[in-house]
Amino acid sequence: MIKITLPDGSVREYPKGSSSYDVALSISEGLARNVLAAKVNGTVQDANLPIETDSTVQLLTWNDTDGKSTFWHSSAHLMAEALEALYPKVKFWVGPPLENGFYYDVDTNGESISNDDFKKIEDKMLELARQKNDYVRIPMAKADAIKYFEEKGDEYKLDLLSGLEDGSITFYKQGNFTDLCRGPHIPNTGFIKAAKIMNVAGAYFKGDQNNKMLTRIYGVTFPKQKELEDYLTLLEEAKRRDHRKLGQELDLFTFSEKVGKGLPLWLPKGAMLRERLENFLRKAQVKAGYQQVVTPHIGSKQLYQTSGHWEKYGKDSFQPITTPEEGEEFLLKPMNCPHHCEIFRARPRSYRELPLRLAEFGTVYRYEQSGELHGLTRVRGFTQDDAHIFCTDDQVEDEFKKVIDLVLYVFKSLGFEEFSAQVSLRDPENKTKYFGSDEAWDKAENAIRRAAAEKGLKTVEELGEAAFYGPKLDFMVKDALGRKWQLGTIQVDYQLPQRFELEYVGSDNQKHRPVMIHRAPFGSMERFIAILIETTAGNFPLWLSPDQIAILPISEKYEDYANDVFLTLQEQDIRGYVDHRDEKIGRKIRDAEVNKLPLMLIVGEKEAEEGKVSVRRKGEGDLGSMTIEEFIAYAKTEIYKNIPQFKA
Amino acid sequence: MIKITLPDGSVREYPKGSSSYDVALSISEGLARNVLAAKVNGTVQDANLPIETDSTVQLLTWNDTDGKSTFWHSSAHLMAEALEALYPKVKFWVGPPLENGFYYDVDTNGESISNDDFKKIEDKMLELARQKNDYVRIPMAKADAIKYFEEKGDEYKLDLLSGLEDGSITFYKQGNFTDLCRGPHIPNTGFIKAAKIMNVAGAYFKGDQNNKMLTRIYGVTFPKQKELEDYLTLLEEAKRRDHRKLGQELDLFTFSEKVGKGLPLWLPKGAMLRERLENFLRKAQVKAGYQQVVTPHIGSKQLYQTSGHWEKYGKDSFQPITTPEEGEEFLLKPMNCPHHCEIFRARPRSYRELPLRLAEFGTVYRYEQSGELHGLTRVRGFTQDDAHIFCTDDQVEDEFKKVIDLVLYVFKSLGFEEFSAQVSLRDPENKTKYFGSDEAWDKAENAIRRAAAEKGLKTVEELGEAAFYGPKLDFMVKDALGRKWQLGTIQVDYQLPQRFELEYVGSDNQKHRPVMIHRAPFGSMERFIAILIETTAGNFPLWLSPDQIAILPISEKYEDYANDVFLTLQEQDIRGYVDHRDEKIGRKIRDAEVNKLPLMLIVGEKEAEEGKVSVRRKGEGDLGSMTIEEFIAYAKTEIYKNIPQFKA
Repeated sequence: MIKITLPDGSVREYPKGSSSYDVALSISEGLARNVLAAKVNGTVQDANLPIETDSTVQLLTWNDTDGKSTFWHSSAHLMAEALEALYPKVKFWVGPPLENGFYYDVDTNGESISNDDFKKIEDKMLELARQKNDYVRIPMAKADAIKYFEEKGDEYKLDLLSGLEDGSITFYKQGNFTDLCRGPHIPNTGFIKAAKIMNVAGAYFKGDQNNKMLTRIYGVTFPKQKELEDYLTLLEEAKRRDHRKLGQELDLFTFSEKVGKGLPLWLPKGAMLRERLENFLRKAQVKAGYQQVVTPHIGSKQLYQTSGHWEKYGKDSFQPITTPEEGEEFLLKPMNCPHHCEIFRARPRSYRELPLRLAEFGTVYRYEQSGELHGLTRVRGFTQDDAHIFCTDDQVEDEFKKVIDLVLYVFKSLGFEEFSAQVSLRDPENKTKYFGSDEAWDKAENAIRRAAAEKGLKTVEELGEAAFYGPKLDFMVKDALGRKWQLGTIQVDYQLPQRFELEYVGSDNQKHRPVMIHRAPFGSMERFIAILIETTAGNFPLWLSPDQIAILPISEKYEDYANDVFLTLQEQDIRGYVDHRDEKIGRKIRDAEVNKLPLMLIVGEKEAEEGKVSVRRKGEGDLGSMTIEEFIAYAKTEIYKNIPQFKA
Repeated sequence: MIKITLPDGSVREYPKGSSSYDVALSISEGLARNVLAAKVNGTVQDANLPIETDSTVQLLTWNDTDGKSTFWHSSAHLMAEALEALYPKVKFWVGPPLENGFYYDVDTNGESISNDDFKKIEDKMLELARQKNDYVRIPMAKADAIKYFEEKGDEYKLDLLSGLEDGSITFYKQGNFTDLCRGPHIPNTGFIKAAKIMNVAGAYFKGDQNNKMLTRIYGVTFPKQKELEDYLTLLEEAKRRDHRKLGQELDLFTFSEKVGKGLPLWLPKGAMLRERLENFLRKAQVKAGYQQVVTPHIGSKQLYQTSGHWEKYGKDSFQPITTPEEGEEFLLKPMNCPHHCEIFRARPRSYRELPLRLAEFGTVYRYEQSGELHGLTRVRGFTQDDAHIFCTDDQVEDEFKKVIDLVLYVFKSLGFEEFSAQVSLRDPENKTKYFGSDEAWDKAENAIRRAAAEKGLKTVEELGEAAFYGPKLDFMVKDALGRKWQLGTIQVDYQLPQRFELEYVGSDNQKHRPVMIHRAPFGSMERFIAILIETTAGNFPLWLSPDQIAILPISEKYEDYANDVFLTLQEQDIRGYVDHRDEKIGRKIRDAEVNKLPLMLIVGEKEAEEGKVSVRRKGEGDLGSMTIEEFIAYAKTEIYKNIPQFKA
């Protein structure tokens, strides 16, 4: 008998050679029906593989990331089987699972596969799936494997084989399809009930553009038809909400090849949105005792040698800027912290000044390969809502908790009610990637754990995700589509104060080293706004909306009145525009709706005579007619009541 | 007889060979006594030089810049005479007049001249001045001149002579001192009634650090003792107001060698001052129909090749930033206009959108030699209160006038009541320095002239001061010390729209090219704040003051009450601090005065019990005790009534 330890800590005994499937069956038949694979002693493997020694076993179903991944890997094989059946000349390179679905890179040998063929492939996949063919694992001697693919004339698999060691090689076979594969796989094709080919694209063999172009076929599968439908709906919705699309439609931002890739140009409406968000945070930060500073966007190379940025990132960053005669070297600033350290050093500091909280909406520049750029979420220049808190050792935990409060206030105010927190730690296997002593790291990591626990945050810990100077608490929010995004971050740092030799005079009249906390609730304005656009689908709350009102004169005759109303409202900081176009009122209303205007003020003869406006609110419809004063009172209440107030 | 035309246009006849002095004498004896030199047919010359042909004559006195300059040039000779008398071994290089005073570079041949010697030199100068020795002009053949200085063993003057042509050489002699000099000079040393040696410094011969270090002796002289006293008082006052000194004392900004020379770090109070100024202008700009945008601080080299900046300034600027793998080249942005052009180009534009006024507080970077840097007035990174107005040809003049209104509003609001305007034109002798056709330049220059005239501005025209893309209207303000500063600027530009191929669709459905107006009322935040600091001596108006209130608890017992008052006022956006130090109230008041706090709120037992504050206003003294509500009402009135409102 062997002992099997389950994730809940319970230990059960089974005959030696029992499989994970047997373990599942011993718990419930229903569970066994859903087991896709199992994690045995930390390694994912086939559910039917015999277990020979005492082991920990985690049964994997569709609800587990590793379960899904196995499902999609097996689906790639199923798609390959379908392709081979439909296109006998096709040859296969690799077919991995993805975050959502899978692909297979294939050499079609001249056959063309296009959108028109997707249905045919899907049908064939489902036909084969209905056969419930087992995924059979076949260990194979390297010589036999080579012989097999030589006979088949498959240069791709032979290439793969050349890198593998004898003894470690397995084939997997389901139905008529056999592949060189280390697995693991789901029990049989019958689990796959829904299939969709998403896309074809070109992909160079081994990613090298000197090689042959292969065809990459993307697919996704599900254990239920309904799940596929939900997924496709979600995709449609995500596409509709894509911040790159909405950013253009709503005139928020643009990119120019001439300015440079990954360098957003904020158009008036986007700049207004940024300004409103910044002012919202500025106001909370005043209450929380922060002070704004402004620092330049470059710094001498020496500054980043001191901070360690040069050593860590110099070669892979934007290269130094030199001066024509004096041989100086400057770098575009990748982080604001070194500049803030120099502000701390500008004059002697006393413990009375601590915690000193220096905040800056600081624009930083980081080189990303142009292929990695994506809308506003992956850019080369972005503005951090940055701050650095310089405090005493004793103040670290309390300050950390205050920052958590501020971060949670920001998330809740902006409608991100669901979030999780991740404690990002050093990779203990690779400590040389990080600066500082074990002791300092332990202290910082524990301070974060304690602060998070005291604030009642549920956290997960991730190794290897720390900054090079210290551990972090990262906040993930879930958007309206259930997608997770990393936003705010809080970091404890004992290293930079040492590297910059920061000091303050304590109440004991001795010199001490402060601790630094780095933090950014939004993370970056660019990323945060991208996510805000996608979660709201561009329907920003009234207090954030770049244009709050559209004034729609029924005809040219009421333009003057419309302009007067506009100026009166502008004076009250209620912003928007007059639709001066020579269009029917119905069209003006429709366009204001497309532009996601929260409030429409329609003005015609009656309104002009009575000094009124007819108000329509997006999502609520007609609110009737109001005098200008009534409307101002209404709008101000609606704007301000929806800006939550921060309490320090 | 010859005809002499005077500046008022009157023409008088004099015997051939009469001097300017004779002309003066014929007008009044008093005038003749004050004539220092004369501008004859546009050239400044000695007052006693005979005039042989019909000429225009402008008599120069102490009130003329050229008169002062001649006076100081002659004073340099007087100082040289005094030095030669005191230090017989001294040799002379050059001794030009300056904006205020003069210097002479001398080789002391081992003698040391320090502050302790200044009195001795001044006394000797005045002793020689009292001899009323004439400055005698002596035309000299080159050979004779060389012989003279060879005999004297003066290698410096021989060096100077080597570059001069025979026939153009003159000596000037007064008392015992003879110098190689092209003049002109004042009639005699008796005009000099007050002298002050200001400073000695080292200066390399011919500015080359491989050459010998000479001693540069700075002096200043006046025709009246009282004028010297006034000048020294002004200098003291300017020193007291020096923005570099006040900037540090008031904790407004700092510099760090590690960040880099000429790159200011704005400390919390300075950042607050910036923010208040920015918000002031933002508000006016909303009323004036501007829209804010935000653009990155770098742009691809190609962007600046299009704009022409690369061709004009590339070699002498911060050098390009390259990327590690992709071989891209970016430049730190020296101006915001190319970015704004790309925003204009982001989508098709209609005449209905014009004038399109894009504003940005845009930080730009320009290389200056480190020796040229000076506090905030000459920096390498600065934030322009920039905007670009894209308009039709027909709108240029009207838009230009609106900008003049905005600029004048800004100046008047900030207490710069005295200003002048300069029309900065192309250098007609050197047109290749500028882009664009004569026609476009004429159109732009005339638009500026007409707009300035219609707004009733008195303007002077300066050749060679235009931007490379168009003429400018530059505004000079006079500060409390009577010093002139160049601040705001407005520019008309037909070139960039062409270089960027900007287009809009007109009401005729045809494509047209817009015109651009560049403008910045402050000029730059850095320069403007430097001048604001110097003119106010750091006593900013209440609405701009970074800290508006200091709350001064009489003892520790009232700290809690002081904190409550602080938070209540902060909620009302009335900003400042609580003086928590364990100091006597007298000391706290004194320190708040030194820190230039506009309002002090003193809180003790009585105030805490009654919920009041005792208010002191800087410059007004005790205002008595007020309830918190009364104080809020008072402060808000005082803050807001002093922010002038812009009317579009």
